Amino acid sequence: MAARIDRDVIDKSNEQFQEALEADYAALGARLDRRGIAIDDIKRKVAGFTVAVPSWGVGTGGTRFARFPGGGEPRGIFEKLNDCAVINDLGRATPAVSLHIPWDKADPADLRAKAEELGLGFDAMNSNTFQDHPDDPSQPLSYKYGSLSHTDAAVRQQAVEHNLETVSIGEAIGSKALTVWIGDGSNFPGQSDLGRAFERYLGAMKEITKGLPADWRIFSEHKMYEPAFYSTVVQDWGTSYLTAVELGEKAFCLVDLGHHAPNVNMEQIVSRLIHSRKLGGFHFNDSKYGDDDLDAGSIDPFRLFLVFNELVEAGARLDALGPSYMIDQSHNVTDPIESLIRTAGEIRRAYAQALLVDRAALRGFQDENDALMASETLKAGFRFDVEPILAKARLEAGGAIDPIAAYRTSGYRQRVSQERPASRGSGGGIV
Amino acid sequence: MAARIDRDVIDKSNEQFQEALEADYAALGARLDRRGIAIDDIKRKVAGFTVAVPSWGVGTGGTRFARFPGGGEPRGIFEKLNDCAVINDLGRATPAVSLHIPWDKADPADLRAKAEELGLGFDAMNSNTFQDHPDDPSQPLSYKYGSLSHTDAAVRQQAVEHNLETVSIGEAIGSKALTVWIGDGSNFPGQSDLGRAFERYLGAMKEITKGLPADWRIFSEHKMYEPAFYSTVVQDWGTSYLTAVELGEKAFCLVDLGHHAPNVNMEQIVSRLIHSRKLGGFHFNDSKYGDDDLDAGSIDPFRLFLVFNELVEAGARLDALGPSYMIDQSHNVTDPIESLIRTAGEIRRAYAQALLVDRAALRGFQDENDALMASETLKAGFRFDVEPILAKARLEAGGAIDPIAAYRTSGYRQRVSQERPASRGSGGGIV
Amino acid sequence: MAARIDRDVIDKSNEQFQEALEADYAALGARLDRRGIAIDDIKRKVAGFTVAVPSWGVGTGGTRFARFPGGGEPRGIFEKLNDCAVINDLGRATPAVSLHIPWDKADPADLRAKAEELGLGFDAMNSNTFQDHPDDPSQPLSYKYGSLSHTDAAVRQQAVEHNLETVSIGEAIGSKALTVWIGDGSNFPGQSDLGRAFERYLGAMKEITKGLPADWRIFSEHKMYEPAFYSTVVQDWGTSYLTAVELGEKAFCLVDLGHHAPNVNMEQIVSRLIHSRKLGGFHFNDSKYGDDDLDAGSIDPFRLFLVFNELVEAGARLDALGPSYMIDQSHNVTDPIESLIRTAGEIRRAYAQALLVDRAALRGFQDENDALMASETLKAGFRFDVEPILAKARLEAGGAIDPIAAYRTSGYRQRVSQERPASRGSGGGIV
Amino acid sequence: MAARIDRDVIDKSNEQFQEALEADYAALGARLDRRGIAIDDIKRKVAGFTVAVPSWGVGTGGTRFARFPGGGEPRGIFEKLNDCAVINDLGRATPAVSLHIPWDKADPADLRAKAEELGLGFDAMNSNTFQDHPDDPSQPLSYKYGSLSHTDAAVRQQAVEHNLETVSIGEAIGSKALTVWIGDGSNFPGQSDLGRAFERYLGAMKEITKGLPADWRIFSEHKMYEPAFYSTVVQDWGTSYLTAVELGEKAFCLVDLGHHAPNVNMEQIVSRLIHSRKLGGFHFNDSKYGDDDLDAGSIDPFRLFLVFNELVEAGARLDALGPSYMIDQSHNVTDPIESLIRTAGEIRRAYAQALLVDRAALRGFQDENDALMASETLKAGFRFDVEPILAKARLEAGGAIDPIAAYRTSGYRQRVSQERPASRGSGGGIV
Repeated sequence: MAARIDRDVIDKSNEQFQEALEADYAALGARLDRRGIAIDDIKRKVAGFTVAVPSWGVGTGGTRFARFPGGGEPRGIFEKLNDCAVINDLGRATPAVSLHIPWDKADPADLRAKAEELGLGFDAMNSNTFQDHPDDPSQPLSYKYGSLSHTDAAVRQQAVEHNLETVSIGEAIGSKALTVWIGDGSNFPGQSDLGRAFERYLGAMKEITKGLPADWRIFSEHKMYEPAFYSTVVQDWGTSYLTAVELGEKAFCLVDLGHHAPNVNMEQIVSRLIHSRKLGGFHFNDSKYGDDDLDAGSIDPFRLFLVFNELVEAGARLDALGPSYMIDQSHNVTDPIESLIRTAGEIRRAYAQALLVDRAALRGFQDENDALMASETLKAGFRFDVEPILAKARLEAGGAIDPIAAYRTSGYRQRVSQERPASRGSGGGIV
Repeated sequence: MAARIDRDVIDKSNEQFQEALEADYAALGARLDRRGIAIDDIKRKVAGFTVAVPSWGVGTGGTRFARFPGGGEPRGIFEKLNDCAVINDLGRATPAVSLHIPWDKADPADLRAKAEELGLGFDAMNSNTFQDHPDDPSQPLSYKYGSLSHTDAAVRQQAVEHNLETVSIGEAIGSKALTVWIGDGSNFPGQSDLGRAFERYLGAMKEITKGLPADWRIFSEHKMYEPAFYSTVVQDWGTSYLTAVELGEKAFCLVDLGHHAPNVNMEQIVSRLIHSRKLGGFHFNDSKYGDDDLDAGSIDPFRLFLVFNELVEAGARLDALGPSYMIDQSHNVTDPIESLIRTAGEIRRAYAQALLVDRAALRGFQDENDALMASETLKAGFRFDVEPILAKARLEAGGAIDPIAAYRTSGYRQRVSQERPASRGSGGGIV
Repeated sequence: MAARIDRDVIDKSNEQFQEALEADYAALGARLDRRGIAIDDIKRKVAGFTVAVPSWGVGTGGTRFARFPGGGEPRGIFEKLNDCAVINDLGRATPAVSLHIPWDKADPADLRAKAEELGLGFDAMNSNTFQDHPDDPSQPLSYKYGSLSHTDAAVRQQAVEHNLETVSIGEAIGSKALTVWIGDGSNFPGQSDLGRAFERYLGAMKEITKGLPADWRIFSEHKMYEPAFYSTVVQDWGTSYLTAVELGEKAFCLVDLGHHAPNVNMEQIVSRLIHSRKLGGFHFNDSKYGDDDLDAGSIDPFRLFLVFNELVEAGARLDALGPSYMIDQSHNVTDPIESLIRTAGEIRRAYAQALLVDRAALRGFQDENDALMASETLKAGFRFDVEPILAKARLEAGGAIDPIAAYRTSGYRQRVSQERPASRGSGGGIV
Repeated sequence: MAARIDRDVIDKSNEQFQEALEADYAALGARLDRRGIAIDDIKRKVAGFTVAVPSWGVGTGGTRFARFPGGGEPRGIFEKLNDCAVINDLGRATPAVSLHIPWDKADPADLRAKAEELGLGFDAMNSNTFQDHPDDPSQPLSYKYGSLSHTDAAVRQQAVEHNLETVSIGEAIGSKALTVWIGDGSNFPGQSDLGRAFERYLGAMKEITKGLPADWRIFSEHKMYEPAFYSTVVQDWGTSYLTAVELGEKAFCLVDLGHHAPNVNMEQIVSRLIHSRKLGGFHFNDSKYGDDDLDAGSIDPFRLFLVFNELVEAGARLDALGPSYMIDQSHNVTDPIESLIRTAGEIRRAYAQALLVDRAALRGFQDENDALMASETLKAGFRFDVEPILAKARLEAGGAIDPIAAYRTSGYRQRVSQERPASRGSGGGIV
């Protein structure tokens, strides 16, 4: 398997940038100091914030029209893990990986060993009942018309068992949570009974929940549409919340930032789920139209900041919930490793900016209904260019000041492009 | 006060149309009979379905840009009630009126007497804390920055008391429910703490709920935006549901069809609220962009049908909930009386079409995942031209076969235009 | 190749339904007669209205998440044409097929012969530069980063030549138009220079236009997003119009009903393109969220009617333009043959309803600003249940009164399921 | 009339902040210097960029539900101009005012004299045919059913004459452009003939254009919806472009950032209008849902930056067009003076960030399809905290480093609140 990134490459790269970084860090430190903020405290908090990468994110994504693979696509979970390790080597923000079963099915002992070797751990497990798995003998029935909400009890049962198998793999590798996203729904009014479909879903989810280990959590993930184009069983946070309440104390809601109706205020949904103690975690990404799965913060960085503003504001209440932070993106036109590196940076950027908000002042202005100053106080946090803090945190953790530059210098993509022959086929013809 | 519609006018109008109606009713009856449906049963159910008109709906509405009043605008609640009576005289579908306090404040005994004289009753009461009421000595504080969720406890208290006063008026006139819609929210990120605002709202709503008579219900009404343009405290059905659960068994959710994000599947929200036993009622209208408050069924009649499909499908579960059916529209370019007459007809049309769906066949196709035939079976109900059923139901109840035609013949608008001098001012300058 | 539908099957099926049809047709005729409309005239116009089916529509579609194939999927263009013939045999509304190159590449003489045998013709040709074609030696360069707007002139040249090849195939089989839809755009702000990309596109389109036969037209098709998720080169009708003007008199705009922003008034776009003499044609389908490609009229039948209202209203101006009417749908959960049969019916339904609008009355109410009666007059057309007209037109043209029923009785799907072994693979893993 | 802001107040305020500003400016200068950018050049360009304030923006706005006035609302155009002068005194970015007729009707000589005294000029004039003007004897006919597109030629003529009167006032005070925004449209399908309404509009606009002075321009402003809720005559940039082409070389398109469908890529519209030489100007504001008219940059600052990225990118082509930059906002919950001060700052912020983009590098990455680095290069401009540049530009032009702070210290609002008694009425009852 391809060597990762030489320590030497990182060090040489850092040498180039370190002087400027120290100057910028000092200048920012001085500005923050004038506001009574110790820059090192912020850096420490940022360094402690990590986010999981999705195993499926290191391959090139696509649309129903086409997929245009890049060079050196990982051919299996072990190559995927290697790519994940590269991301973490450089960015030092992504020590865990989220697996997708059956895509990543392998001997759990091998998975653990490989992860340990690479310095990685495992975050929430993902089951897959939105596709058929003709090669998986445990899933002979088709999910064409649904899985956990299917009208046929046998299909529901198969889907339940697949989820439980996913849990058992997860248990063996140290995961503590299962994310359930289903594509179940309908394409035409009348195709499905909206009420009964939900009740079948709840029944199946209860079966899965019963089978969870004592220290596990289950996340229900809502999505407005796609692959179903008229109704989706778990279409919004309201339904996800109903589900989590019905399933009980192990069940929580997972918020994918791209799964909402146009114009929806997502940070308020986060706030409501914190209020109701049901926020389970995030799938970070960005989008302009639908579930575009673009790199987090690339389309609307202020919106990402507003989500982190809610998280920082929640303080101890959030700590009690301990949500899982995960990335879920589709990298169609970039090197997936590069996109994931910068995404982790963007997420930390939003967190750092949220930490820099003067919360006492903010609350004061809110209490007085000084809308302008409250708004300006919040934006003041966002306006800080916190790159020096992020870079310093990476540097001190052994990563790269400019991880994309270091990655490109390393020649990793070229190496794996040789090692991993391109798979044929650019998708297709699904229009 | 203006005479209503002469019996004679209605009778003469009906004479014109009756022969054709009988022919059409017979032809439709024959078609339904071939499908095993007795047209008279459908007519009976339709005749039993009524919807309340909003007192504020009989005046001409407007936008922030302008209001263009029509002739004969009612100048107070008693003239409004007179207009409501005209609507019911002709359409025989709207025997109840929903009042708005303080707009419609009057001696309850007078209100009762007038309603009785007109053959009307009262549906849910509406409070108003989205405007300031400089003439109402009980509401000296401003709602500019919120009401039930205001940061200032005194404003919240004032808003609570106003709601309780609204209940007490309602109690005196025979209403059994309070609809609470607030405009509370914020225009800028940071202006309001999203979590604390919701908690203040819940606290105030609990106060109101405590003050409800034993046989009353309280409806929380969600809305995505407007008048607040960044966040709204009760922004969607999820928050409305959280509210209703926290308030307990007297609290339910009211669905205004125009209060959702673009593309949202509203009939599924109705289904979820039926599932969770929290559907309290409807504000019917139609919209293309935002909360356009257009005449129900004028923009997307199939969507209105799909809502009624859920209601008919729910059967006994719906009966147990007994939701309130109310219209909430803004009539900017039509004679409000005409718009309300046709709206009541549209609502009954959707109901009649939903009743004509072959539910046994539909369920069979759903169970077999025969998406095409399920979809066609549902649409078959929608495709029926049920106007003969609606007209016959009106006729038999003493109304007009063609109520708009009869209304125009009656000269009512001309009469009230003379009696009620135009109020000056076309709104304005709020841009 | 599978036998099509026995005449006998159709006749037997029609026997079942004919009596009821005659009764319904007579009853509707009587109602229309009372309004001064001769039902046979409407039937004749409806019978004359046809719409092309897309060759790719007879296979099962899918999403980026999965494709769930049905039985008897056509394995090539000749089997696709056979399926198209079945659709036309039963529905008698779809005598032409729209091809997609290179998917449907074959010897033009064979294509012509097969079409002639099946009683089919060919409508607009479609080129494909939104996918790579590793098997097509004429297209070795990748379209990952665009085609007609690519930064590399060699890729643009390849795409131009592919379009010209598509034209030359079309010419040989009797087509008269080329539809150009490209996926070109970008996923991230900055990725592409929005202005220069458009200018490159215009340059390439001019090359293609130069190569068109004298009696051909070229259609530019706009789409808001997907596969590009930040910017799309031809993102809306404004850009499509700019393109058509710049390309000159052979160039027109094609409107796919699913390619617009949420809430957009599509019928007004149709009106504007008629005004500016640039309406080239349609891709019919329906959608609730994005480019969902659902069966036309299945989500919002009134919207489809409003499009046809513009077409009927335009009268002679439309005739001068002679737009192409084509279906473009993705059939993910239905038998594609069934979906296309009913879609053609839905399109004719909307046309028939639009024909039934009392246009003199409508214009009168419009001129008087009688918003309510104008709106009611338009809706009166929509409310007619015109199924008897559609069925009679089919019957008289040799088709089936109930074409779905006849199709199911025929056993065609079962026969082709045996003849055409299932292709393996359910898509996948593109997330 | 209220004294404006004492020089002394500004100076004292600046004393407080100047030391920190110099440090921040130096630190940023050093960072830019490392990238080969001279900070003083950027500052000079920023100082040269100005934006007009709308006369109507200094009053408190509202919604159809209510208007909550603030203290010291200006009671006429001369008090409005005074407020505008205060905005410019402090921010030094808004030396021109855009008037609205008939709201701001006054003797042109007085307007000129007052503006000269205040150091202000006049940008584009705005006509008003979206309201009735019962007090304006030149506009006796109602615009309830339209103005420039009305079915009645007399109403169209009145609207044309009103526009020409607006031009003649503008001419007398030194304006050079007329912005035409109409609310014309319809609320129900069928109410208006979409094609004929547009043709009537074009006819009327031609009349106005004929009456323009030689050196004037006319701007057509599109808007998706509101006040019309089904169709709007000039609904998008496509229709605005058709209009501008038909009107000829004096006609251009004005882009209000809040007038588009959800999710629309606005910067691409700007790019297309630059390409076609028809970009006439902007109405800056921000929005989350509809035409929310919030402070520019308050909801999505990155989007504002992307608009400026197009402007900077266009370079000489933009200079040739010389668009008008104007603010159009509704200040419902803030002091309008404060909102306009910060808005001007936000607009300059976006401009400064766009100037800091490394365009040579950006183009290189674009040409190589290096999506990630192109995107990062663009965002690098956005990430700069350019506040020191903005503040320095203000300071050197005689304004305030922190203009909101200086304004609050000045006591201006308190003074005008005493001088200008509150107007009664909080709007209302238009629901």
